[in-house]
Amino acid sequence: MAEQKKMVEAITPMEEDFAKWYTDIVKKAELMDYTSVRGCMVIEPYGWAIWENIQHILDQRFKELGHENVSMPMFIPESLLNKEKEHVEGFAPEVAWITMGGNEKLQERLCVRPTSETLFCDHYAKVIHSWRDLPKLYNQWCSVVRWEKTTRPFLRSVEFHWQEGHTMHETAQEAEEETQRMLGVYADFCENELGIPVIKGRKTDKEKFSGAVATYTIEAMMHDGKALQSGTSHYFGDGFAKAFNVTFQGRDNSICHPFQTSWGMSTRIIGGIIMTHGDNDGLVLPPAVAPIQVIIVPVAQHKPGVLDKAQELRKRLKKAFRVRVDDSDQSPGWKFAQYEMKGVPLRLEIGPKDIEKNQCVLVRRHDRQKIFVPLDQLEQAVAEQLEQVRKGMYEKALARRESMTYSAKTLEEFKKIADSKPGFVKAMWCGDLACEEKLKEVAGVSSRCMPFEQEHIGDTCVCCGKPAKTMVYWGKAY
Amino acid sequence: MAEQKKMVEAITPMEEDFAKWYTDIVKKAELMDYTSVRGCMVIEPYGWAIWENIQHILDQRFKELGHENVSMPMFIPESLLNKEKEHVEGFAPEVAWITMGGNEKLQERLCVRPTSETLFCDHYAKVIHSWRDLPKLYNQWCSVVRWEKTTRPFLRSVEFHWQEGHTMHETAQEAEEETQRMLGVYADFCENELGIPVIKGRKTDKEKFSGAVATYTIEAMMHDGKALQSGTSHYFGDGFAKAFNVTFQGRDNSICHPFQTSWGMSTRIIGGIIMTHGDNDGLVLPPAVAPIQVIIVPVAQHKPGVLDKAQELRKRLKKAFRVRVDDSDQSPGWKFAQYEMKGVPLRLEIGPKDIEKNQCVLVRRHDRQKIFVPLDQLEQAVAEQLEQVRKGMYEKALARRESMTYSAKTLEEFKKIADSKPGFVKAMWCGDLACEEKLKEVAGVSSRCMPFEQEHIGDTCVCCGKPAKTMVYWGKAY
Repeated sequence: MAEQKKMVEAITPMEEDFAKWYTDIVKKAELMDYTSVRGCMVIEPYGWAIWENIQHILDQRFKELGHENVSMPMFIPESLLNKEKEHVEGFAPEVAWITMGGNEKLQERLCVRPTSETLFCDHYAKVIHSWRDLPKLYNQWCSVVRWEKTTRPFLRSVEFHWQEGHTMHETAQEAEEETQRMLGVYADFCENELGIPVIKGRKTDKEKFSGAVATYTIEAMMHDGKALQSGTSHYFGDGFAKAFNVTFQGRDNSICHPFQTSWGMSTRIIGGIIMTHGDNDGLVLPPAVAPIQVIIVPVAQHKPGVLDKAQELRKRLKKAFRVRVDDSDQSPGWKFAQYEMKGVPLRLEIGPKDIEKNQCVLVRRHDRQKIFVPLDQLEQAVAEQLEQVRKGMYEKALARRESMTYSAKTLEEFKKIADSKPGFVKAMWCGDLACEEKLKEVAGVSSRCMPFEQEHIGDTCVCCGKPAKTMVYWGKAY
Repeated sequence: MAEQKKMVEAITPMEEDFAKWYTDIVKKAELMDYTSVRGCMVIEPYGWAIWENIQHILDQRFKELGHENVSMPMFIPESLLNKEKEHVEGFAPEVAWITMGGNEKLQERLCVRPTSETLFCDHYAKVIHSWRDLPKLYNQWCSVVRWEKTTRPFLRSVEFHWQEGHTMHETAQEAEEETQRMLGVYADFCENELGIPVIKGRKTDKEKFSGAVATYTIEAMMHDGKALQSGTSHYFGDGFAKAFNVTFQGRDNSICHPFQTSWGMSTRIIGGIIMTHGDNDGLVLPPAVAPIQVIIVPVAQHKPGVLDKAQELRKRLKKAFRVRVDDSDQSPGWKFAQYEMKGVPLRLEIGPKDIEKNQCVLVRRHDRQKIFVPLDQLEQAVAEQLEQVRKGMYEKALARRESMTYSAKTLEEFKKIADSKPGFVKAMWCGDLACEEKLKEVAGVSSRCMPFEQEHIGDTCVCCGKPAKTMVYWGKAY
């Protein structure tokens, strides 16, 4: 009954209140719940199952590329955090501090890790001795804490789950290649598994990670035209290695510092899935990470043979797909709405008439397309339709991003677009922080990235008119 | 070369110094490393891979029994921890307290979760409304923190990894059945996958979990005769539910409190594997969780065809087993010692003479048995030998436990055994705390459990001579 009541309250349409639409979905699709701890959430079974699917795919890719999983402590002693100057300046204002253990005051404060470069370096200093020990390709799956003032489920929370890869290499070139390679893994995962088109590029110095030489990013566009930084990859040079005294004996016997990278993707991407694919009926999940890929809804299930047939189809499909039958007492209409809310990619309807014709109906969540399928071709049809869904979701998202991406040559034009049209603005930039800050001030946008795929919009900076160095994507961001 | 040096230093024999033997193994088999944070460790790739294998098996079993994974916050507000009186008394003295967020003092302290009953209850109070919402069968994989004074790798650390299942049921009977069922899952996993024989039983009130009505345990015996509590399962009645105001509408429309369980197994079990199966050459890993199940060592690998054959065998075996070839420049002897140290269950040797005879040699780690295998029967032979290893490891451990388990009828006899013979003592008990405390004082042992499989050792309490209520396993413990 609680369920039925839930379905009666429709979710807020996104056109009316996008933020409310978003939180309606995370709550009503039972992805998360709020807790007594400010900014921390319960990730409920349906939400966590999405994250487990994401973990499974990424973990496999990392391992195929030679990475090994480890586990570092969740605490960082203050003195360790302080070792790299830019890094501590970036993170110290937003960490949680442990000052008491039991009833005793600690001699040195510990922070809960906001990210683990310092811990990995501390360990690497002990285990790296020779060029033969390189590369070290470590990753960990964990949660980290950043004391954010304003939080939103999945998008920005005090505690969030992620993976953080931390690698050490013999040469700068190898480390830079790793940085690019892992950005490529993220981009491929987003586009081909999640159906989220992304722009790959480099962050400006203003937007880069504290302590990094270069930060690379994949930027996705949400329904409301705002950007979501969806994964990042950092190149550190040997800065941390020097600060932490990580050395190795090189091939020529000289003592060298290794070159470092780190890269991360977090539960934030679940927010990205919601805001890229969701609609006013709820969630729309990419098949690769959907906890249920096919929901079987029996029609007129009290009629003889219907439930048996539904179970028979489930047994056939479960060999290759994540499939469930809903044989509860709710009406088919209620079930349709329920699994649309939950974003299940394919609905399979089977009733007495279908059984007579030896067929069933498949309905795709993302475009409502209905397909009649002979039962003896079911496995093949489901595989084909899930592939259609995967492609279709990507194409739909890409078309929307393209329709909401603009170019500006002058500041006036830039401001007009930024004020009136949600989306990204492509514009040339001279490279000066002053112009970046001015665009924030006058147009409310930040630089999203300097894309690898550059376009020549003009010769001069859209802000100051001086010679341009690079084309930049600008936008409002989560 | 660092590797070679490591092999030259042998590990300390367990007969000489058991504690040193243990830490030698965890370090030299590269399971973990110490960190700058007191009592927290780095779990290195080889150690973490063991834990991932443990997770994989247990997670599958939990899910088959209908459990769902979730993620709760890592912090507990002080007021929430305080809600259940016995629970807070048990845990408050050993938690880490967050008092600052960034530069601001928090209005209310947060502790890092030592266990999550309070968080689950807080959530369950919101999501459980009707008997139709029950049972709730949730589990989470995470790390928890207990501010221990003395710590040892895997066995007792400030931060440790575990899973914690937390379930709510309509009736006391259902909850009690769940408690037993999950203890059974742990026992089966230990015995059949890890080769660790365990005694299933109930903890005395003195030894039970803070806030539980009853705590059940599986107790394993280590090489040195000490007990390792290897997994526990708690029945809470409706105590927490009342304290946290978790209610549901029953089938008769009355307002009821649900009945609760929790159960956990941790990275401690890795310590249990080491101390049950390890020997003076290093680790001995059960095939189910060994990161490498078969190590292929080419002999005279410079001779034509040897490395090719080794790789060919790897390709054949990798379809069903976790297998590697070590084709490094180290000598076969070095490699034999190295993978013995790492506890790899089977070594496959292949050299020119073997190739001529179309055979290879398999060597079992746990009993050094050598088997010559025709290459065309390789897959089958490896499967059979791994099964032999699994059984053999269990039987060896069981025989040792039996040879180190004693019965005592009088206090004098009890003291004599406890003083002179490492192992367990079975003895009758009247049920009084005073006797339990006296046995600790005079014989240095604690009650391990009141086993489900009771034996009649006598009619009277071994300590006070009053009528006995139950037979108890007593021993020194980790």
